[in-house]
Amino acid sequence: MGYKIAVVGATGVVGQEMLKILWERKIPISEIYAFASEKSEGTHVNFGEEKIKVEKADVSNISKADFALFSIGEDISLELAPKVAQKGTIIIDNSNAFRMDPNVPLVIPEINPEDLNNHKNIIANPNCSTIQMLVALNPLHKKWKLKRIFVATYQSVSGKGKDAINELLQSTEAYLKGQDISPTVFPYPIAFNLIPHIDSFEEGNYTREEIKMVRETHKILHDSSIKVSPTCVRAPIIRGHSEAILAEFEREFTLKEVYETLEKAPGVKVIDNPKEKKYPMPFYCNGKDDVFVGRLREDLFEPKAINIWVVSDNIRKGAALNAVQILERLIM
Amino acid sequence: MGYKIAVVGATGVVGQEMLKILWERKIPISEIYAFASEKSEGTHVNFGEEKIKVEKADVSNISKADFALFSIGEDISLELAPKVAQKGTIIIDNSNAFRMDPNVPLVIPEINPEDLNNHKNIIANPNCSTIQMLVALNPLHKKWKLKRIFVATYQSVSGKGKDAINELLQSTEAYLKGQDISPTVFPYPIAFNLIPHIDSFEEGNYTREEIKMVRETHKILHDSSIKVSPTCVRAPIIRGHSEAILAEFEREFTLKEVYETLEKAPGVKVIDNPKEKKYPMPFYCNGKDDVFVGRLREDLFEPKAINIWVVSDNIRKGAALNAVQILERLIM
Repeated sequence: MGYKIAVVGATGVVGQEMLKILWERKIPISEIYAFASEKSEGTHVNFGEEKIKVEKADVSNISKADFALFSIGEDISLELAPKVAQKGTIIIDNSNAFRMDPNVPLVIPEINPEDLNNHKNIIANPNCSTIQMLVALNPLHKKWKLKRIFVATYQSVSGKGKDAINELLQSTEAYLKGQDISPTVFPYPIAFNLIPHIDSFEEGNYTREEIKMVRETHKILHDSSIKVSPTCVRAPIIRGHSEAILAEFEREFTLKEVYETLEKAPGVKVIDNPKEKKYPMPFYCNGKDDVFVGRLREDLFEPKAINIWVVSDNIRKGAALNAVQILERLIM
Repeated sequence: MGYKIAVVGATGVVGQEMLKILWERKIPISEIYAFASEKSEGTHVNFGEEKIKVEKADVSNISKADFALFSIGEDISLELAPKVAQKGTIIIDNSNAFRMDPNVPLVIPEINPEDLNNHKNIIANPNCSTIQMLVALNPLHKKWKLKRIFVATYQSVSGKGKDAINELLQSTEAYLKGQDISPTVFPYPIAFNLIPHIDSFEEGNYTREEIKMVRETHKILHDSSIKVSPTCVRAPIIRGHSEAILAEFEREFTLKEVYETLEKAPGVKVIDNPKEKKYPMPFYCNGKDDVFVGRLREDLFEPKAINIWVVSDNIRKGAALNAVQILERLIM
């Protein structure tokens, strides 16, 4: 009659959205479990009109489920997921823990669902910034082959969880009242500011967030020849990531062909009517499933390059929705 | 004993900053005039510890000055400046009116001061986004020759004047109180949002702001072979523009040479120590003269390309300071 489904990290921003989307999309569920850390044990989360009790996330609890959607810290994923997987539960993990593991498929269902065939009970959900970029670019890549991507991100605070949202709102209010701001989640005030630093710094002074966009693109598209130049920036936006992208292809195309391709592309919605001031904006993407694409412009100098502006709800398609779509493919 | 200097548009954000900088930099002034539209006539503006009376901006009034710094609407510049110039006053105009006029030098004093030699009493101040980009890139261009620039901007609202600043602050407050936002300056709410639309739309669905970055780069660097791919975005930042840039050069270089070059470059301050979380941010650039450069990274795939993050106070180096620096060159 249905599957036993667990959400691990059910009290977080992404975990709650997972429960919401599982309900909305009428996934056939016989049992739903909500797991979180010990401190949330006994609290309740919403699942449709039901309230479900939060249990402690441990191996024996989680392995009651057929499928477990993980949205917890990388370290806890690394510890719990292999043990749960060994007991036969299939895990869709939203953290960075397994994304580059050669035994773990990294999947955007619109792009590489066939990679699911080889899973060994753990499947990784890509990074939010990578998902929306590739949902927009892959339809073009399939026709004209991507050669190079320049991407600058404008990332909302919600990717960093509830505390980050509260810090943006509270520090904004403090600023408006002329009070001092003492950030704890971000290294600097995020109110009316930009922080060009997401996740830790790695080789070549790139951040991990930037490196993820490079490596995940190569893994998902099965093409490590694509040159990706990313700069990732945290902006004072509550929800919804935006990206300014220059994409360069091997083969020639017309702008009309680009529109036609994107208008037919799964998961993509084109909003691009400059005369009517229509273009994607993060303020209007909350709770929506699509990756919004606009400001399409042929490059002024490179005939095989195009400038694009891509906006999507990072909590939804960038995290919870993509995980549920992977689940849908698995139970199809 | 000094020059007669006029600030035209003296009650605006840039006009007031011009007066402040003229005072700070001890420009030799015998008479200072503040001009604005009729509706500000009789009000007062600060000049050091003095209060100066605002007079109506008309040709006979302004032409009392030896030099006039214009920061008014493009239409009024177009009407007034040629008439004032004909009477012998030298105009440094901050609007878009004359920037691409072949008879008008477009000058960033650190880059092309020699272009001032050919002025015909009107000199144009470049667009804020262009100024900070080129102050950062020109020192590298001189050594390795720029071939291509990808730039995504994160522009503060102050570039659009006092009303825009008020709209950001008021709409942010309204949002926090759960009230509706009715924007009048911007086409959409700017609080917690990004608007990928600055100035009007032009050919190829580029905005004028984007086209300015292309054409002004070519004119200032005297090189129209440089491929510029811009996307300009308004962000909920009060003051200070930021830019994520990928710059590609003709010749090879090392990252060490880039640092050495930028550290010696006029008007540039390098803030780039990821381990110590040091990078430029708009929150900290207000009232500062420098163009701040950081997040320097060799491109992961293109040996002659570099990723850079550039932040500057758009009202200061992006407008008022650059105009006063042009004046300094003229009276040197």
